Amino acid sequence: MITVEWTAEGVRMIDQRALPTEELYPVYSTYEGVAEAIREMVVRGAPAIGVTAALGIALGLKTSLAPSVVALEDEFLNICDLMAATRPTAVNLFWAIDRMKRVFAAAKATGADAPALRETMIAEAQAIHAEDIDTCRSIGRHGADLIPDGATVLTHCNAGALATAGYGTALGVIRGAIEQGKTIQVFADETRPFLQGARLTAWELMKDEIPTTLITDNMAGHFMKLGRIQCIVVGADRIAANGDTANKIGTYMVAVLAKRHGIPFYVAAPISTLDLTLASGDEIPIEDRTPLEVTHIKGQRVAPEGVAVANPAFDVTPNDLVTAIITERGVARAPFTESLRALAG
Amino acid sequence: MITVEWTAEGVRMIDQRALPTEELYPVYSTYEGVAEAIREMVVRGAPAIGVTAALGIALGLKTSLAPSVVALEDEFLNICDLMAATRPTAVNLFWAIDRMKRVFAAAKATGADAPALRETMIAEAQAIHAEDIDTCRSIGRHGADLIPDGATVLTHCNAGALATAGYGTALGVIRGAIEQGKTIQVFADETRPFLQGARLTAWELMKDEIPTTLITDNMAGHFMKLGRIQCIVVGADRIAANGDTANKIGTYMVAVLAKRHGIPFYVAAPISTLDLTLASGDEIPIEDRTPLEVTHIKGQRVAPEGVAVANPAFDVTPNDLVTAIITERGVARAPFTESLRALAG
Repeated sequence: MITVEWTAEGVRMIDQRALPTEELYPVYSTYEGVAEAIREMVVRGAPAIGVTAALGIALGLKTSLAPSVVALEDEFLNICDLMAATRPTAVNLFWAIDRMKRVFAAAKATGADAPALRETMIAEAQAIHAEDIDTCRSIGRHGADLIPDGATVLTHCNAGALATAGYGTALGVIRGAIEQGKTIQVFADETRPFLQGARLTAWELMKDEIPTTLITDNMAGHFMKLGRIQCIVVGADRIAANGDTANKIGTYMVAVLAKRHGIPFYVAAPISTLDLTLASGDEIPIEDRTPLEVTHIKGQRVAPEGVAVANPAFDVTPNDLVTAIITERGVARAPFTESLRALAG
Repeated sequence: MITVEWTAEGVRMIDQRALPTEELYPVYSTYEGVAEAIREMVVRGAPAIGVTAALGIALGLKTSLAPSVVALEDEFLNICDLMAATRPTAVNLFWAIDRMKRVFAAAKATGADAPALRETMIAEAQAIHAEDIDTCRSIGRHGADLIPDGATVLTHCNAGALATAGYGTALGVIRGAIEQGKTIQVFADETRPFLQGARLTAWELMKDEIPTTLITDNMAGHFMKLGRIQCIVVGADRIAANGDTANKIGTYMVAVLAKRHGIPFYVAAPISTLDLTLASGDEIPIEDRTPLEVTHIKGQRVAPEGVAVANPAFDVTPNDLVTAIITERGVARAPFTESLRALAG
């Protein structure tokens, strides 16, 4: 299973909207197509969005007919703007775009011509892709120690291989614990409205033969109350300087319940998910998505015509509910303002 | 809109599985059909289940060919057993069956013959039906005073007209507040897996032109955190002597979040929902339903084939999270063991 990859024909990705019933691998041969794929959630998950945006930008430069460095740069910046406008919450998108911009500027400063710039940028996007898998494996190693042998771990949404270039962040921690020889079971929240837990997390964990029980989001508290869940690991879309964490809608409720039941609540995310420019989670922009995601499931209407709907795609979990943040450089604990700054270097 | 009614042809009810896309009114001409309709959730909601079971028992007696009182009683008790086996959690079912048994025994003791017994039991079932609407209106009047003018009220599942013979318990409180001239808005949790909130609550509130916003269950905490919700009203399937309340799965998470945000959490239910034989909610049997409710939505698969699923239909909210219990006889507050016993008389 490959989340996203660079091919001679364009950017190829698994269509996450079609899973688990169909395993489709469309190839996008234009950067506009890649941007649309991000917007429409063909690919989703904060790290995967960053990687895909970088590959999309590289694709735009590869297919560009710009004759000069000036024309190429103009086109490059337009492509970056288009990518930046796809989704607002996951900061990894902006991190990847900024990194591409820095590399472009540095290469241009060395006097590289347009063909050389194209080569450099394609290589950089591929490096971002390759590094993401390594990053996830490091997150998995750091996080594995926190998961007790025999634990049942609850996760929300999909912070797995499908949300990254591979291996996963939250699911990377679970995979890391299993690689240590531990026996781990997973409870997966189905994660309405997009059903990432039911469609993606359950699917990829079953592929790895990791015992997984699917529940609806509103069952998590019941199973915590029954003592059936020993720890919680989720991913993140953006982490403010103080540790407040934006993640898929519903994460906040899981964290509040975890606190009530004294269950450790871990966030697993790469350093690229940190946004140290934001003092707290109150400043994180929360994407509102179409009501159709709530009123329709697989094209079937499940709510009355004309009903008002709210569909915030993310919520913010305040740092006091977060036991630790697991990154590729180590584990941060409260006070997060200091520990995160230290890890970010 | 009629939830359930007695007709010359049998027990007629709105098929709640087909709402909101289709408004169907099947008529069940046998008691076995009525029992199956309860089991398959054609009708659901604790008070509605009790009313429907009573009407189903009356139908069984009406269509019985038993020639003697002894034979009729035998058949009656078998019908009661069948009804009692349909669903385990809502105590209103057992309350209605017990009431029918008491009336049967009393009528038999007066020397009534089989035809007279049939008439008595049909009348009793119709009385249970009629009383339920009055009960809901009384709950609405008592609860209305607790809802502030201008409030946005969150509700979970459907404790409305469709969950009762009419008017509703939790939605009865909202209707009562509006009848007092208050301006009320509603947030309706969609309530996976059966989507009672999306399909039923949104539908019946829109019919009454009560402003309603549909959200997925995992969004409730986010909107509480944003200060968008002023109080919560839910129904109940069984309330233990200490006030612990079994209600639709997910109610517990709403209650925990309400506590964190200092939002009043009200339970609205008839006295018939009290089970004073149970000291605490730990003793309430929780129904597990088919995995298909989680893995499929409107016949469409949304999870991988063969995935393990848990599907508890209810959870228990401990009394310390309940601000008050609103009944047709008044409002009970902590300590509930005393206040509920006083109301139960």
